[in-house]
Amino acid sequence: MMTHAPNPTLQKLKARLTDLDCLGSALGVLGWDLETYMPPKGGESRADVSATLCRMAHEAFVAPEVGEWLQTLLTQLPALPTDKDRAMVQQAWRSYQREVKVPTTLVEALDRASSKALPVWANARKTNQFDAFKPLLTEIVQLNQQKAQALGYTHHPYDALLDGFEPDMTTTLLDPLFAQLQAHLTPLVNNLTQSVTPSLPAGPYPKQAQMDFSHKVLTAMGFDLERGRLDESVHPFTCGLHPDDVRLTTRLDEADPLSCLFSVLHEGGHGLYEQGQQPDLWGRGLFGGASLGIHESQSRLWENLVGRSMAFWQVFYPAFQAAFAPVLDAMPLAVFYQAVNRVSRSPIRVEADEVTYNLHILLRYQLEKDLMTGTLTVDQLPDAWNAGMETLLGYTPKNHAEGCLQDVHWAHGTIGYFPTYTLGNVYASMFWAKAEQAGVTQPIAQGDMKPLLGWLQTHIHGNGLMESPNQLVQRVTGQPLTAQYFTQYLDQKYCLKGAVV
Amino acid sequence: MMTHAPNPTLQKLKARLTDLDCLGSALGVLGWDLETYMPPKGGESRADVSATLCRMAHEAFVAPEVGEWLQTLLTQLPALPTDKDRAMVQQAWRSYQREVKVPTTLVEALDRASSKALPVWANARKTNQFDAFKPLLTEIVQLNQQKAQALGYTHHPYDALLDGFEPDMTTTLLDPLFAQLQAHLTPLVNNLTQSVTPSLPAGPYPKQAQMDFSHKVLTAMGFDLERGRLDESVHPFTCGLHPDDVRLTTRLDEADPLSCLFSVLHEGGHGLYEQGQQPDLWGRGLFGGASLGIHESQSRLWENLVGRSMAFWQVFYPAFQAAFAPVLDAMPLAVFYQAVNRVSRSPIRVEADEVTYNLHILLRYQLEKDLMTGTLTVDQLPDAWNAGMETLLGYTPKNHAEGCLQDVHWAHGTIGYFPTYTLGNVYASMFWAKAEQAGVTQPIAQGDMKPLLGWLQTHIHGNGLMESPNQLVQRVTGQPLTAQYFTQYLDQKYCLKGAVV
Repeated sequence: MMTHAPNPTLQKLKARLTDLDCLGSALGVLGWDLETYMPPKGGESRADVSATLCRMAHEAFVAPEVGEWLQTLLTQLPALPTDKDRAMVQQAWRSYQREVKVPTTLVEALDRASSKALPVWANARKTNQFDAFKPLLTEIVQLNQQKAQALGYTHHPYDALLDGFEPDMTTTLLDPLFAQLQAHLTPLVNNLTQSVTPSLPAGPYPKQAQMDFSHKVLTAMGFDLERGRLDESVHPFTCGLHPDDVRLTTRLDEADPLSCLFSVLHEGGHGLYEQGQQPDLWGRGLFGGASLGIHESQSRLWENLVGRSMAFWQVFYPAFQAAFAPVLDAMPLAVFYQAVNRVSRSPIRVEADEVTYNLHILLRYQLEKDLMTGTLTVDQLPDAWNAGMETLLGYTPKNHAEGCLQDVHWAHGTIGYFPTYTLGNVYASMFWAKAEQAGVTQPIAQGDMKPLLGWLQTHIHGNGLMESPNQLVQRVTGQPLTAQYFTQYLDQKYCLKGAVV
Repeated sequence: MMTHAPNPTLQKLKARLTDLDCLGSALGVLGWDLETYMPPKGGESRADVSATLCRMAHEAFVAPEVGEWLQTLLTQLPALPTDKDRAMVQQAWRSYQREVKVPTTLVEALDRASSKALPVWANARKTNQFDAFKPLLTEIVQLNQQKAQALGYTHHPYDALLDGFEPDMTTTLLDPLFAQLQAHLTPLVNNLTQSVTPSLPAGPYPKQAQMDFSHKVLTAMGFDLERGRLDESVHPFTCGLHPDDVRLTTRLDEADPLSCLFSVLHEGGHGLYEQGQQPDLWGRGLFGGASLGIHESQSRLWENLVGRSMAFWQVFYPAFQAAFAPVLDAMPLAVFYQAVNRVSRSPIRVEADEVTYNLHILLRYQLEKDLMTGTLTVDQLPDAWNAGMETLLGYTPKNHAEGCLQDVHWAHGTIGYFPTYTLGNVYASMFWAKAEQAGVTQPIAQGDMKPLLGWLQTHIHGNGLMESPNQLVQRVTGQPLTAQYFTQYLDQKYCLKGAVV
């Protein structure tokens, strides 16, 4: 048996990373509370408290001693006691390099611009006045250009930003992926939008019944309600404070039970990933998932591959009908299945079906890349957006709320995030193909989702941030990123005789 | 007009105290969440997160530079720009001196002892096994003795601890106060427990109706639900994160609506104090109230002087009856008033009426003082408790849960806290007498509590921690601490012909 002498540098790094995870968890509670239970007028002081804890975390991480510990430990890497120690050092070094490269003045300028931009954006969207938002968006684009320069890149400035959301992802990998998707999806959308699909009856669908059914679904998925909870918020989200405390939210609309239901399946997928990580990754900076794209793969897998499947609804539809009886009594399963799989040329990304969704992302990806190089100016953005929607989706937005003001990301100061949504869809189909081979998807048709969850936990959830998304995908699927499984899945689901359309 | 050159030392102190208030507010949310919405298994990681933030706050406060800033600023005190600046420096210096005197090893030892003691105490109380708790309580008493030595005192070691909860309070002031109370209360209790008082019908009193009525009462009190909220918890408490975010909790028992109601009045009183402080005290270490005793004066004033008065119930009883109809339809106001003012020889402090309550505190005060000097050992505690209950209240506890294991404070590592409850009652009556003179209590009988709240805000709430409790009491009432108004209040309420008995 090998034994290791205590490594004081390793212990110091671990202690610092634990402090950072504690601050992260506290910030998580503050953020969750902000969206759920905070009194209406608590927002101003909450902003101060969160900003202060963020600053403390940043200062504690970029402190010179952390750089010294990391450089010492990198020379000792092969001799460190465990895989987790090595991953901890490597992951911290990766983040450290990124964080120290961006000057504090730039970080603060982006924070300030975003704080100013968020209310202006919200108002501009409401009043359809892009001009009001333009100066702030221009500033945000410029600051992101500066950030990309500070971070450095080989090929395209967008790569520097992408890497912050999806480690090692580049435009060189994404360009052909999106091209392949576009080539496949455009004719598919044309085929699928020829016929009329049914809608659900008008309701009402009482909120309490929606929450009760949501809890049933979460329990069936294997989400542990002793280690998590579900609340209502305006925008659904997942907040993982620790593997033992994972909070989901959903929206509730009495006219539309599907909004709540698919939010719960989506956030439940995120939540299972958080609950499934090894507890001792927390406190080492290794908790939270391999990347945004991998995280999104778990939410989309449960939302779409499970939650929009006939296998799932064969089991759950009778209980769903009963929960809202008698509203759905006259709607047979086959018709309901068509309703939850309706494909349409619609303007809003977050309401898009699984076929058109990635075309919405492609549009944002193209526009963001061009904004970063300066090929596209903020002035030209609304026209470019509308032209892109026409080309990609055959839809012309009626106003800016349906167009380039619909998403919060840019007002938030964030550029480079959108592609992780498509990566999530693509990864999900790659994982699903392996799960099918392993025989863990078939029991869903009997209402048993435990085998699937067990497989996901073993192959994906457990490792947290211990490997990069590329490494994880290669290990789990035996091949690098490819759109092939996603397009196959859509073809099989939507184009087979006797299927949805 | 006087102008002041910027004082960089003052700015540095202010920035540090703002950081501490931010950490305090984050800890407040974590604590509130722990008691309200945290998933059952979230407790272990929550303990780590809270302990880490506490340590960060302690380290940021006792840092050597803070001592240097404070010593510089103390020499500049008369020249500082505002009263708030002077109070900020004085209050910080007071706390700094206390915190640096207690060695970190002792702080940590008390933390550890308390973490170990809490579950052991809870179990010992349940199983009536004092012996299981004895070694930990012995350790806690010893650590508090060491803490008193470290803090220093002139007359009695208990003074060193008291001062941490009620600045400048001493046994020299409390001994005669409690003696006077005992002399007055003992015959009063004898008189009032001769006759039988009525109880409320068995109910049920639905939880939602209790919550709805609670919100009505809070609104009538002037509690701003845009800057606060009310939730359910096992033990009611108030959590003031900032004057704009004040959270109350209450307990809900379908068999007993009074438990909820008086908790809401009590916590509502605390909450009004938090909401009434000038917002810019937050961020200067001056938010939170002058002392625990002054805080308790506000909760007891609303719970007892308002909430158990005929003036209040003349207005609110019809709505209370309607909320639980038809359960209370046959109970007239006069009988209900007797029920909410029942006086009895009962074992549990938190359930005691306003007449016997301070005898429960006196017992704890005497025992704690004797534990601190070593006159009483932990071995002798249960017998001493039971003998004291017999002498003071004519009641012999049936078990340790009714006896010396009933309160959480000692398991929490806290000695010297209990007297602040009695101080709250005594202060409340002193303030009430002035409020009556000012004519602001009379409108309560017409359902108008705004004049009272306005008076409390002007004279007590606004100033936060800017003055000591002694200074505040002297300023508001024109005299030092005295039990006279409390005993007069009880005499008038309980002994006049035609009153309760």
